[in-house]
Amino acid sequence: MEQSRKISNAVIRRLPRYYRYLGDLLAAGITRISSKELSQRMKVTASQIRQDLNNFGGFGQQGYGYNVEYLYGEIGKILKLDKSYKMVVIGAGNIGRAIVNYANFERRGFKTKAIFDINPSLIGKKVNGIDVYSVSDLSEYLTKYPTDIVVIAVPKTCADEVAKTVISCGVKAIWNFANIDIPHPDDVIVENVHLTESLMTLVYKLNKDS
Amino acid sequence: MEQSRKISNAVIRRLPRYYRYLGDLLAAGITRISSKELSQRMKVTASQIRQDLNNFGGFGQQGYGYNVEYLYGEIGKILKLDKSYKMVVIGAGNIGRAIVNYANFERRGFKTKAIFDINPSLIGKKVNGIDVYSVSDLSEYLTKYPTDIVVIAVPKTCADEVAKTVISCGVKAIWNFANIDIPHPDDVIVENVHLTESLMTLVYKLNKDS
Repeated sequence: MEQSRKISNAVIRRLPRYYRYLGDLLAAGITRISSKELSQRMKVTASQIRQDLNNFGGFGQQGYGYNVEYLYGEIGKILKLDKSYKMVVIGAGNIGRAIVNYANFERRGFKTKAIFDINPSLIGKKVNGIDVYSVSDLSEYLTKYPTDIVVIAVPKTCADEVAKTVISCGVKAIWNFANIDIPHPDDVIVENVHLTESLMTLVYKLNKDS
Repeated sequence: MEQSRKISNAVIRRLPRYYRYLGDLLAAGITRISSKELSQRMKVTASQIRQDLNNFGGFGQQGYGYNVEYLYGEIGKILKLDKSYKMVVIGAGNIGRAIVNYANFERRGFKTKAIFDINPSLIGKKVNGIDVYSVSDLSEYLTKYPTDIVVIAVPKTCADEVAKTVISCGVKAIWNFANIDIPHPDDVIVENVHLTESLMTLVYKLNKDS
């Protein structure tokens, strides 16, 4: 079924969470769920769920509940998870290795094709079966092998330079774990995971409440 | 100086980023900066910066710029980074080890006191000088040693049970890396780092723009 309906950004922002819950239900062998029960699990009002999921139509009849597998598939299509993505991870430290080893990404179509590092003792080795190359070969690699997503998991001192190389090679999506803001043109998407800021937010809330 | 002024939540949300930039300036030996220059670096309007930083008063005179060290210290106080925090990490996998090895946290007053895992081959070992204990001892440990923050870095299948133990032992702040929503009472703060959802957001934006 072609997805042609216009779905608001606010709904789309909530989709990864629906997708996660529906995936968990499927894994637990649950094929139908009412908006009420989903609402109790997700701590969202049933009316919000009905509104959100009505965007995808064709299910959720009163008394029958939602078809979990169908809904999971439709949301996956909206999120473009029905495609596969070639990923390159830069930095074979703990964060980089966590990404490479996370089976869920692979299963969902995110295929790590290569890892790059500056540490000579890692270059030539494999992580989870994937080759670790020298960062000095990054530019050549990206030029030769079109790559959808680059993960930057290097210390902040070299993140800027790595990002410049990646962007100059035409990569359009960067998943950045370095504790810097990466300057980038408008047609490059940067999604940040800033751990330090997340921890500061936690501490701030903790002190505010206590 | 006592911080008694009322600062809006919106401003406080932006503070970790100011704090990061000011820390970088300090590290680079820059002691004064104009709102214009800070604005160019941070890609925020100079007027937004002036408004935000005026909350802390006592600096930023026209033509003199901001005193970087003073401002850094004041923002640190607001964020309660002038205190130290006892942290326990559950899960000695890649994410757990990344947290334990991240020197920045230690330097900023986040002291990891213990690590817990279920893997017998890790129990009794050390990561970055910190002991790894069995998860079966978690409850006893948390009851004996008051802990400010617990980091949950275990697979989603056991995260729920671990969280229950942690909460029942009176811990008030959880930094959760497991791909689940942790049920928690109102007086417990949970800050999530949901990597899968972050990656889905990146992919969604990538497809939207291309």
